[in-house]
Amino acid sequence: SRNIRLAVIPGDGIGTEVVAEGLKVLEAVGTKFEPTHYDLGAARYHRTGETLPDSVMEELRGYDALLLGAIGDPSVPPGILERDVLLKLRFAFDHYVNLRPVKLFPGVETPLGDSSAEDIDMIVVREGTEGLYAGTGGVMRRGTPHEIATQESLNTAHGVERVVRYAFDKAMTRPRKKLTLVHKTNVLTYAGDLWQRTVNRISEEYPEVTTDYCHIDAASMFFVTQPERFDVVVTDNLFGDIITDLGAAIAGGIGLAASGNINPERTAPSMFEPVHGSAPDIAGQGKADPTATILSVAMLLDHLGLQAEAARVEQAVADDIVERLAGWAARTTREIGDDIAARVSG
Amino acid sequence: SRNIRLAVIPGDGIGTEVVAEGLKVLEAVGTKFEPTHYDLGAARYHRTGETLPDSVMEELRGYDALLLGAIGDPSVPPGILERDVLLKLRFAFDHYVNLRPVKLFPGVETPLGDSSAEDIDMIVVREGTEGLYAGTGGVMRRGTPHEIATQESLNTAHGVERVVRYAFDKAMTRPRKKLTLVHKTNVLTYAGDLWQRTVNRISEEYPEVTTDYCHIDAASMFFVTQPERFDVVVTDNLFGDIITDLGAAIAGGIGLAASGNINPERTAPSMFEPVHGSAPDIAGQGKADPTATILSVAMLLDHLGLQAEAARVEQAVADDIVERLAGWAARTTREIGDDIAARVSG
Ligand SMILES: CC(C)[C@H](C(=O)O)[C@@H](O)C(=O)O
Ligand SMILES: CC(C)[C@H](C(=O)O)[C@@H](O)C(=O)O
Repeated sequence: SRNIRLAVIPGDGIGTEVVAEGLKVLEAVGTKFEPTHYDLGAARYHRTGETLPDSVMEELRGYDALLLGAIGDPSVPPGILERDVLLKLRFAFDHYVNLRPVKLFPGVETPLGDSSAEDIDMIVVREGTEGLYAGTGGVMRRGTPHEIATQESLNTAHGVERVVRYAFDKAMTRPRKKLTLVHKTNVLTYAGDLWQRTVNRISEEYPEVTTDYCHIDAASMFFVTQPERFDVVVTDNLFGDIITDLGAAIAGGIGLAASGNINPERTAPSMFEPVHGSAPDIAGQGKADPTATILSVAMLLDHLGLQAEAARVEQAVADDIVERLAGWAARTTREIGDDIAARVSG
Repeated sequence: SRNIRLAVIPGDGIGTEVVAEGLKVLEAVGTKFEPTHYDLGAARYHRTGETLPDSVMEELRGYDALLLGAIGDPSVPPGILERDVLLKLRFAFDHYVNLRPVKLFPGVETPLGDSSAEDIDMIVVREGTEGLYAGTGGVMRRGTPHEIATQESLNTAHGVERVVRYAFDKAMTRPRKKLTLVHKTNVLTYAGDLWQRTVNRISEEYPEVTTDYCHIDAASMFFVTQPERFDVVVTDNLFGDIITDLGAAIAGGIGLAASGNINPERTAPSMFEPVHGSAPDIAGQGKADPTATILSVAMLLDHLGLQAEAARVEQAVADDIVERLAGWAARTTREIGDDIAARVSG
């Protein structure tokens, strides 16, 4: 089989460090791949004023998949890199499924004293191309006492139905077959009504799936007090953003949380990235945990049909985690990558 | 001094049960008050089709304060009672400060295994009259494959500045004097920019207050992993809704979370209510914990200038909680109310 053509976007802060370890593990698993690096992020922005030129965008479209570290730096005003690089990619490549497993690896410590690995095992299907992320809105009389600033959440039948359908399909692959819609239908009545009606309608095609509904505020509480309520969660872009960071927190921390920005029809490459950000405060110090990126590489392999390789990477991570808990000394980013790569190839 | 004129809105579900105990404690504390009950909620809606008539609205305006149980019932389509009763009151009476303490009482069990009472002691100042709660938005081509549903977040300099100023004043009363803005400035760039600029500007008037910023996704994570980061939190209406339920979860559960919908200029009465909802699944069974309502009564007393009475109610709750943890048998709603009332008067 031909090589996997991989576009690599290390990005900002710890992005570079964690992506290097992700690639190391990809190498170790024996997959043939050709990585091409793209220097998008704060450095390029300061050097050239560019964020993501159209020509680069078109090149990226030709790859089998994208691996991204993290985007965002305090030296750039908030939103510029996020909107013009990360969100632009998600939107242009129609990554309407933002897939974020929330799974406590056996042995990992959760801040929830009473929960165990069986209780925390869900997958969040976050919509990736609509809602408040559309970027619509505006400002009038900026900087005056009469300023008004607006943001708009855009939700379409097309956009909601396809992600809900994906979530039902995902629920069918799981033993509990339970799908929970998380929204705020009692306040966001227009958007909530569209989401709820869509779930109700599609659920008729999936009689084996139990469907449930939970307001975002209650869901945030239940993530902490009763995480076992959730199996597959489907939710909009912003609620998904919030709840998956919370999910990372309960499942052992942001150092372990992986994600895939998926285009299920494969009309453009999907993109894999850790849930964490660029963490400028610890960048360049070898302190970042590359595990989330390595698990994102496993999701990438799975997406490309390499299930056995994906499973080997996941198993290596699980084994590594067990040893960490047995009381290893703190390791650098590179040492963790080395250890997991050794397990994968060994 | 004249009697406190109190409008009581028990509402739906467990609202009736918990409000009865709140009033019992108010009675026990020896304050002279005259309660008038208003039957707003699902029952009235089904009987008369009315939610909150203008005439009732005008009557309510004449009280010193409002005590509310909970609004919302599954027999009514989502949003109707919430918007036409609860949110209507918050908006019409300009409750721009929704004050929600997140405080772990000594001895209370938190789901966060490692945290203690010193770590979880913050106060969330949630904006109460703007943002996505404005209710603006719409739907086109409803029920067709071309449906589009929108929601709009409206933010004004006037609305943001007054709540931010309140939060700074609140921070000045606290030993740590730290204020954290929670928002999502990297995605909600127009609204986020208004919030961030406002905090920056007002902070110059409060040189003793340390200000900080945290994205809503990261804040949700930190509530679980590092709650000690937060002292006073100021945030918009929706983020505040989410984060205060999460706050309730980490501070011993929704049974203890109190809130005040405050009109600081007193141009209309303020309204006090537990953070929890109407919980129709356990309504009428004496299972609800009235403590959140009783603590809301303490906030009410404080707001009306009865600091000593407020402190007595809070102390009675704290003492009651200590005894619960010493291993009391489960008590009914009424028994908990009786016990706390006895401590208050005793
Ligand atoms: C960096 C930011 C724009 C992004 C988001 O909000 O989606 C991040 O928080 C994430 O969850 O991937
Ligand atoms: C019932 C609902 C409209 C309300 C809100 O969203 O504000 C509730 O969740 C709250 O926090 O008081």
